[in-house]
Amino acid sequence: MGKTLIEISEVGPRDGLQNIAAIMPLKAKKAWITAMANAGVREIEVGSFVPARILPQLADTADVVAHALTLTNLTVAVLVPNYKGAENAVRAGVHKITIPLSASETHSLANVKRTHTQMLEEIQKITRLLKSLPKEQRPKFEGSISTAFGCTLEGPVPEKKILELATALMTAGCDEVGLSDTTGYANPVQIKRLVCAVKNTVGDDKLTGLHLHNTRGLGLANALAALEVGITTLDSSLGGLGGCPFAPGASGNIVTEDLVYMLESMGLDTGIDLNKLLASRQIVQSALPGETLFGFIPEAGLPLGYEMV
Amino acid sequence: MGKTLIEISEVGPRDGLQNIAAIMPLKAKKAWITAMANAGVREIEVGSFVPARILPQLADTADVVAHALTLTNLTVAVLVPNYKGAENAVRAGVHKITIPLSASETHSLANVKRTHTQMLEEIQKITRLLKSLPKEQRPKFEGSISTAFGCTLEGPVPEKKILELATALMTAGCDEVGLSDTTGYANPVQIKRLVCAVKNTVGDDKLTGLHLHNTRGLGLANALAALEVGITTLDSSLGGLGGCPFAPGASGNIVTEDLVYMLESMGLDTGIDLNKLLASRQIVQSALPGETLFGFIPEAGLPLGYEMV
Repeated sequence: MGKTLIEISEVGPRDGLQNIAAIMPLKAKKAWITAMANAGVREIEVGSFVPARILPQLADTADVVAHALTLTNLTVAVLVPNYKGAENAVRAGVHKITIPLSASETHSLANVKRTHTQMLEEIQKITRLLKSLPKEQRPKFEGSISTAFGCTLEGPVPEKKILELATALMTAGCDEVGLSDTTGYANPVQIKRLVCAVKNTVGDDKLTGLHLHNTRGLGLANALAALEVGITTLDSSLGGLGGCPFAPGASGNIVTEDLVYMLESMGLDTGIDLNKLLASRQIVQSALPGETLFGFIPEAGLPLGYEMV
Repeated sequence: MGKTLIEISEVGPRDGLQNIAAIMPLKAKKAWITAMANAGVREIEVGSFVPARILPQLADTADVVAHALTLTNLTVAVLVPNYKGAENAVRAGVHKITIPLSASETHSLANVKRTHTQMLEEIQKITRLLKSLPKEQRPKFEGSISTAFGCTLEGPVPEKKILELATALMTAGCDEVGLSDTTGYANPVQIKRLVCAVKNTVGDDKLTGLHLHNTRGLGLANALAALEVGITTLDSSLGGLGGCPFAPGASGNIVTEDLVYMLESMGLDTGIDLNKLLASRQIVQSALPGETLFGFIPEAGLPLGYEMV
């Protein structure tokens, strides 16, 4: 009642699944997404419209979207790497499209084989497609600056470059920009500095979400720093799926269960029932018996008297 | 260089070793402490003066202290549970004595078989002993309130109780109080609220250190919150020794390597050479081949271009 609402954007079905070799059956994906929505998760990145030969794990994204759209109170989000992906996303009827733009041009070329200029042209093309749709059918369009806090290929990325790209994304027609710590390089001071700088550049309400990784153990500390400078949406992955936090180069998303626990224990409102969320791990574990699910809360349990707090 | 100095108090040789079954040989303890001091760690809790039948792992504390005192620029700290321990600590010539006072009386009775009143009487007795020493031989005396953020036996601990105990510790003659999240129950909001309340009660300079655990994954986020309310000393354990962070009930100290990385990446000064610190893990691992050492930084490595930041 009057508690600050923090939005958790669950990215496990996309970022988690794309980083493991095993392919989760469609049926399990549906059950997992349903369980998370029932636990109160209000935004799920359910997949990515990329060629199946590149990410066979996500080849059924259209079917996953179709299912997710039947659930109530759920923002169905997808990642797209290009115009073609956006077309498919629009066809599928998603609520939100995120396109990554790597701050490191080296990483951009390695990841999507495009320069910044080429990516921005692609984004303009997507904007034209979205603008051609009736307003009520138009998905929200976010440009997410990846490697925003440093790159494993280039090292530190100049903050001036991030501000330029944020401006360019808005000019190209994005509704909002996001910042992504793809490499797990961010620290709390950097988070605050960069978030404030980008907010000052594109507008306070045009940067509301961060995608943080826990590769170097700073995921929750960075999330805390982000909250303190007005970030209200945080990406995370159930069980930290897809990234062994103890392995270099791994995805290492923040564990949703731990993030929800931290936020709720701080008196913030995620709208998520932690016990139901924890129960949904079983679906993932059964469907992916070879994968390790992570998380401190799943192991240590909730504090005695937690409900009383 | 004008950077804020944050003191790391390494508690691995005490809190780490007391929570494992294996006994580290004295020679390895000495080598480990030397390596950490050489890496720039300026305070180490090297042991605890408790009966050997209770903690055989720390039975050689007097010898460890004797060695640690030969190292330069090192504050040699020990934990003592009672007057007898303090006597031994004084005899050994330590620089700092910490005595725990459990906020939860249930926990106090279980842990040291004493009520609050009995513990405070013991502390007064220790104060008289310390006051009888010439000033230059008098170790610093800290009263550390354990289970300050909640108790696995009692659940939430009223903050009023913490303030009462903090005042009582100062009245009983402690130079300073500390707060310990023994159970890993703390959250960042609680950290800020309680630290501020205690500082307001006993004086800003009488609470400078926290002992945090990472049992629920919030260790570094809690450390960050602590820094923001003026805490300048943080306890941690090399490799998170003595606590499997993925096992309930475990000690789960913050991993020193990850804490130092976070602080240094934020532009704070710990005085610690991270590469030398990481190298010292080998000593622990060789001496305790059956123990798992934890840490994200040891696995993921430092970011590319980290030295440039």
